[in-house]
Amino acid sequence: MTVLSEDAHGVYVIAATPFDSAFAVDERSIATMVDFYLAKGADGLTILGMMGEAPKLTPVESLGVVKSVLACASGRPVIVGVSAPGFAAIAELSRDSMALGAAGVMVAPPSSLRTDDQIVEYYQQVADLLGPKIPIVLQDFPLSTGVAISVSAIDRIVRTIPSLVMIKHEDWPGLGKLSTLRQQEDAGRRRVSVLCGNSGLFLPEEMQRGADGAMTGFAYPEMMIDVVRLSRLGEHERARDVFDAYLPLIRYEQQPGVGLAVRKYILAKRGVIAGATQRKPGATLPPKAVAEVEALIARQARRLQELN
Amino acid sequence: MTVLSEDAHGVYVIAATPFDSAFAVDERSIATMVDFYLAKGADGLTILGMMGEAPKLTPVESLGVVKSVLACASGRPVIVGVSAPGFAAIAELSRDSMALGAAGVMVAPPSSLRTDDQIVEYYQQVADLLGPKIPIVLQDFPLSTGVAISVSAIDRIVRTIPSLVMIKHEDWPGLGKLSTLRQQEDAGRRRVSVLCGNSGLFLPEEMQRGADGAMTGFAYPEMMIDVVRLSRLGEHERARDVFDAYLPLIRYEQQPGVGLAVRKYILAKRGVIAGATQRKPGATLPPKAVAEVEALIARQARRLQELN
Amino acid sequence: MTVLSEDAHGVYVIAATPFDSAFAVDERSIATMVDFYLAKGADGLTILGMMGEAPKLTPVESLGVVKSVLACASGRPVIVGVSAPGFAAIAELSRDSMALGAAGVMVAPPSSLRTDDQIVEYYQQVADLLGPKIPIVLQDFPLSTGVAISVSAIDRIVRTIPSLVMIKHEDWPGLGKLSTLRQQEDAGRRRVSVLCGNSGLFLPEEMQRGADGAMTGFAYPEMMIDVVRLSRLGEHERARDVFDAYLPLIRYEQQPGVGLAVRKYILAKRGVIAGATQRKPGATLPPKAVAEVEALIARQARRLQELN
Amino acid sequence: MTVLSEDAHGVYVIAATPFDSAFAVDERSIATMVDFYLAKGADGLTILGMMGEAPKLTPVESLGVVKSVLACASGRPVIVGVSAPGFAAIAELSRDSMALGAAGVMVAPPSSLRTDDQIVEYYQQVADLLGPKIPIVLQDFPLSTGVAISVSAIDRIVRTIPSLVMIKHEDWPGLGKLSTLRQQEDAGRRRVSVLCGNSGLFLPEEMQRGADGAMTGFAYPEMMIDVVRLSRLGEHERARDVFDAYLPLIRYEQQPGVGLAVRKYILAKRGVIAGATQRKPGATLPPKAVAEVEALIARQARRLQELN
Repeated sequence: MTVLSEDAHGVYVIAATPFDSAFAVDERSIATMVDFYLAKGADGLTILGMMGEAPKLTPVESLGVVKSVLACASGRPVIVGVSAPGFAAIAELSRDSMALGAAGVMVAPPSSLRTDDQIVEYYQQVADLLGPKIPIVLQDFPLSTGVAISVSAIDRIVRTIPSLVMIKHEDWPGLGKLSTLRQQEDAGRRRVSVLCGNSGLFLPEEMQRGADGAMTGFAYPEMMIDVVRLSRLGEHERARDVFDAYLPLIRYEQQPGVGLAVRKYILAKRGVIAGATQRKPGATLPPKAVAEVEALIARQARRLQELN
Repeated sequence: MTVLSEDAHGVYVIAATPFDSAFAVDERSIATMVDFYLAKGADGLTILGMMGEAPKLTPVESLGVVKSVLACASGRPVIVGVSAPGFAAIAELSRDSMALGAAGVMVAPPSSLRTDDQIVEYYQQVADLLGPKIPIVLQDFPLSTGVAISVSAIDRIVRTIPSLVMIKHEDWPGLGKLSTLRQQEDAGRRRVSVLCGNSGLFLPEEMQRGADGAMTGFAYPEMMIDVVRLSRLGEHERARDVFDAYLPLIRYEQQPGVGLAVRKYILAKRGVIAGATQRKPGATLPPKAVAEVEALIARQARRLQELN
Repeated sequence: MTVLSEDAHGVYVIAATPFDSAFAVDERSIATMVDFYLAKGADGLTILGMMGEAPKLTPVESLGVVKSVLACASGRPVIVGVSAPGFAAIAELSRDSMALGAAGVMVAPPSSLRTDDQIVEYYQQVADLLGPKIPIVLQDFPLSTGVAISVSAIDRIVRTIPSLVMIKHEDWPGLGKLSTLRQQEDAGRRRVSVLCGNSGLFLPEEMQRGADGAMTGFAYPEMMIDVVRLSRLGEHERARDVFDAYLPLIRYEQQPGVGLAVRKYILAKRGVIAGATQRKPGATLPPKAVAEVEALIARQARRLQELN
Repeated sequence: MTVLSEDAHGVYVIAATPFDSAFAVDERSIATMVDFYLAKGADGLTILGMMGEAPKLTPVESLGVVKSVLACASGRPVIVGVSAPGFAAIAELSRDSMALGAAGVMVAPPSSLRTDDQIVEYYQQVADLLGPKIPIVLQDFPLSTGVAISVSAIDRIVRTIPSLVMIKHEDWPGLGKLSTLRQQEDAGRRRVSVLCGNSGLFLPEEMQRGADGAMTGFAYPEMMIDVVRLSRLGEHERARDVFDAYLPLIRYEQQPGVGLAVRKYILAKRGVIAGATQRKPGATLPPKAVAEVEALIARQARRLQELN
């Protein structure tokens, strides 16, 4: 059983939750999807995140997904999103997931938090609740949560909560913030892992500013894997060549709301999952958007061919 | 088994959820609390609302509370708050509660909704999900949800969703809105029940503008019961005499956040529940606030005595 | 010329801005209104606040109001609300007002601020802009601004900005915050003046927790003046007797949006200003609300008579 | 004097407001900047928008900018951003600008608006205020204003306000919304001009979905001009070739907050304005960001060369 630590790096793919046409969790697609991500070279997986439609599942279903993913994950670390309006639900899913072999849990702040003190106290309460043995990932995604977490607040959280081992960085704009987090460490603060989200929209710059990798669910995980690998080798121009080829589609898939329909459409098209079904409330991709996505994929394929 | 309808009126007390000192649901206190509310004259109860610390319970615990309350409710209608981030949780708790004998369910809009169309569509999806036989209460509480529901949106919701039978009215300011809702009915729209929340802070005016009663959890339910009763008899000055006696405490208990600590403190002091414990995150009443509450209670007792 | 300092206390009435029926600033009513406030015993005035309809004036009109009020203020301190989306406007109105004899300026945070660092930096930039000689009042009114200012942030602001001399306290709930501010001073932090807003809804408790007075615009300034005077004498029960008599109307006037229409209606009824006109967007009091206000005033008069 | 109409199309560049090193408006740079935009082929200009640092100017300065831009605009239409917290300021700047020769005014909704009715009423009040002869542009930019405007609300606004001639479309995601706006017209609603913002991040798709052009301030206006021109010719693949070459920088410049520093840095580097100075609060581009921008510009230049 892998346990998440501050040394984590590489690409943790944010996994979708596949549903069949009757809106039930599609176990078979979970298996093919996990196989696909691992075959492409994912270092780990993150499940039951916002893009995993976690709030649309009952607790029993959530734990079922954890079990199914872990069964196929070949020992790679699996992080479980456990954000919920209350602590009882967070504690229950966290403990049950860890008992099944998860590597850690990810927690986004509830939208009611405002001040630095409130945010720091919230994570301290979560850490008290989960105890010292469950590694915690802080998800910093203000566009979605409505909660702006200052670098001072993150600094206090990292200093006071030893079990906080990773930041999912998706503040926007976030490049300056990432550099400041790394400077805090240069000044002596414990170093934590920083993986970047936002569909990878700033991944080349983020890798150069000290990110340890990506944690996002763009439907072509090969993009994240290549950009992270090349960046870690110092091959920044080649990393950008790859990135630029995917960028028109990244931009399209990164749209809030619509993005998940795009992602599931492509995953289904690639045969990774059986169908693009979302639970309500969720969009199916309208015909005009399908045409746009297909045009972007065709151009992307040509561009990638030119690169090789 | 009582089923909620548009004719509902009177006082539906928002019930607290009592916890013992180990933070477990306190079943015995549920029984004494329900007895107390009914003995005071409550026409119904609403449980698992925001003030019932619903998000702090697991689904299994929530259903346990439903069961316990229904066991003591002597056939009075019990409305269950089922608001949740996703439809699966809403559907599950709603169906299970109705199967146990609940009278209806209450749904507040998720904070992500903004436009009229989004709000109307949300309630239509909820109604589709629950089917025509589960009566729905719309909770209109922008201060807490962040969602402003226009009178036009409510009009569309009432027109298109026959199972929507009641509005928990706690917009602020809300007096003009309440009058407009009643005017829409005078113009031919189906009449729904309107019960008022906000700790009853505007209850005398609301009753004169056409409210059917109160749905709130002020620690002295006798206030709501007397004000509603006198108002329905047309005894508005006497209703205000009672109201004014309680107002200094209503104002104090209506403070967001702190209010629940005040409410549980008083309920415990009155012997209604065994203790004032809240689950985290939740405040205990600091000494200065205890002194303020005691001073208010003493003055209130004197004032009520003068009235009789 | 009075200059505001940390020693300020008593009642600073938030003045309305009177308009004539053609929506022009009503200079004559400014004079009668200022006379009225001073005759009732106001220690100072605050003009061009949110309830002074400041954003509805052009800069030229704003300065005209400052001039007119100062001309009648008999040397009492006048604080000018200078909140604006940009620093150029803040600087211009502040300097011009001080040159005319204002005692200080009041600044609320723009709604875009979120983190502690952003809020502290904003006030530091304002202080740099205005220089050391213009006393600044921090308006802490999250319900209206959307900006939650933590006690830690206020502590940093008071420590680093010597020209910050007063806090207009209208956070809600705010009693615990007020006590914490005073505890910070007991621990050695410079003491600043704290005057309370929110129509005085918690004034008795606030005075007992260390407030220096009130800064609000309730249409019966005699309430604030009596409650503050009695509280400062330690006559807390008598202060509450007065307060409770006014509370039903305070509660009504404190409603957001509608409240200003109530306030101007009563000021006009009392002969303080010639008419209740607001500039757009602004409500006139609908007939049902007029009836409610009149009923509240009649009961209030009876209650006050009983007290004497 | 050009007056804006529903037929407007092409590229209206959002102009920066240049400041000299003493933070005064830099008149000479205004002249070179306007020359540059027109030389590149801009059909019109939009000034004093959010990216024009409008809230940082006093009314006198704002009008000075209007005058200076109009003096160099060679008769091309100039739209003036007049958004302000109050109607008096909106009316004054609108009338003065039109008197000087502006083509129309742009108004974003104040952040306090929530419901459809509030939004529609706001624009009706603005239209009443300005009278029938001042063409109005509705700026639909929820990410910045916090106000979500539904397609139903826009439909009502267009139907009831004849002087509303253009929508600055920068909702995100916004492609479906744009298609719906065009479908409303196919169903008989008056057609208005739709120009797209958001730094052009979705410009190729928007042009194919019926946009009339772009209104944004990306530092290479040649991008917008070429993409719009090629799209209008039906040369969509060539439009995308151009777009894709600029996309890595568009993405970078589109970051909120930081983006303006990038834009001014590039405009200064290109000799369009004398310096990148912003008024406070405003960022200068830190060294790491300068390096990133330079890398993006170098890659962009190579890519554009490959295209020719």
